[in-house]
Amino acid sequence: MTHQEKLQLKTSGHRDMHDITAEVAEIVERSGVRTGIVNVFNVGSTACVGTIEYERGLAAELPAILDRMMPPSHSYGHELAWQDGNGHSHLQATMMGPSLTVPVAAGKLVLGTWQQIFHLECDIKPRDREIVVTIQGE
Amino acid sequence: MTHQEKLQLKTSGHRDMHDITAEVAEIVERSGVRTGIVNVFNVGSTACVGTIEYERGLAAELPAILDRMMPPSHSYGHELAWQDGNGHSHLQATMMGPSLTVPVAAGKLVLGTWQQIFHLECDIKPRDREIVVTIQGE
Amino acid sequence: MTHQEKLQLKTSGHRDMHDITAEVAEIVERSGVRTGIVNVFNVGSTACVGTIEYERGLAAELPAILDRMMPPSHSYGHELAWQDGNGHSHLQATMMGPSLTVPVAAGKLVLGTWQQIFHLECDIKPRDREIVVTIQGE
Repeated sequence: MTHQEKLQLKTSGHRDMHDITAEVAEIVERSGVRTGIVNVFNVGSTACVGTIEYERGLAAELPAILDRMMPPSHSYGHELAWQDGNGHSHLQATMMGPSLTVPVAAGKLVLGTWQQIFHLECDIKPRDREIVVTIQGE
Repeated sequence: MTHQEKLQLKTSGHRDMHDITAEVAEIVERSGVRTGIVNVFNVGSTACVGTIEYERGLAAELPAILDRMMPPSHSYGHELAWQDGNGHSHLQATMMGPSLTVPVAAGKLVLGTWQQIFHLECDIKPRDREIVVTIQGE
Repeated sequence: MTHQEKLQLKTSGHRDMHDITAEVAEIVERSGVRTGIVNVFNVGSTACVGTIEYERGLAAELPAILDRMMPPSHSYGHELAWQDGNGHSHLQATMMGPSLTVPVAAGKLVLGTWQQIFHLECDIKPRDREIVVTIQGE
């Protein structure tokens, strides 16, 4: 059994993080799948998804440390060609990855109590994001 | 066809790595799936899974380099709110990711000769870990 | 429905990146799956896959920044035991991950316009790579 839906998300730009656990859980419920997996995928190359303990401290710290590792800079090769100022956004999103797969058991997402599904905007301007949620199982 | 089992793992705390390839391979065998995928997922926000050439050097080096990139520190936002000393554990586990998907062919895991499935504890104290293994295919 | 094929890829060694989107898209088409997911997996512990805006600047920048974070060095534990000069290759590939899962909708890969599937060689010498592509859905 396969069930697929799209989530829409408006982001405010660089470092904007959202907790999308509730939205994904609702889609899992609608799917009717009891045992299986759910894949969460960000369409586009400058945002990412993953799991985190979703609280204010970490929601600020994760993008801050990504900026320390892959800092905004106009000297990236990407910038020399495109001058769109988001070379670091691409590197950060590629490093973190656009895709997350979480198990489904007894019809529910299997996550730790302090483990939520996040979406992180790495681009430098507000974006309308599309996230594809695909559930497979029985 | 969907088959799901849980693995239990006791870890000794920060930097403790385990090779869980044999346990995952046994579950694949029990599933009866010949062609498909297997998803390995760490429940909780301070440990991760992935693939590595599992040998003593790399098992020490990977957590060491994660500590260099995201060092233990009491100045993280997470620490200011929670004072539990594991801000870096959250960042490291989120960066590495809780989820790994590996193909199954001819009823077996498809891995390189020097490629094993690892679980890495990023938290600062011993933990009882639950790893969900889900196989799908035919 | 499950469909699985292998891609072969010759790489020239460290920092060699390939766009494999077209090859993966063809396998999706052959599978006949309309709605589902496709998993792309690099067999071996010194190369990785992911998504990126595939253009010359980023194709050079991503491996460069991985080399800055996990630099080539003969002092890694892996090196002390094996002296094969690719300790950083292992660390980089493990950090990036061997596995990517992308949704399939209306019989096609769901990717952003500027989002491609890449394979990155992290090893220090030319390699013959095998990439397993598994599609599941209906």
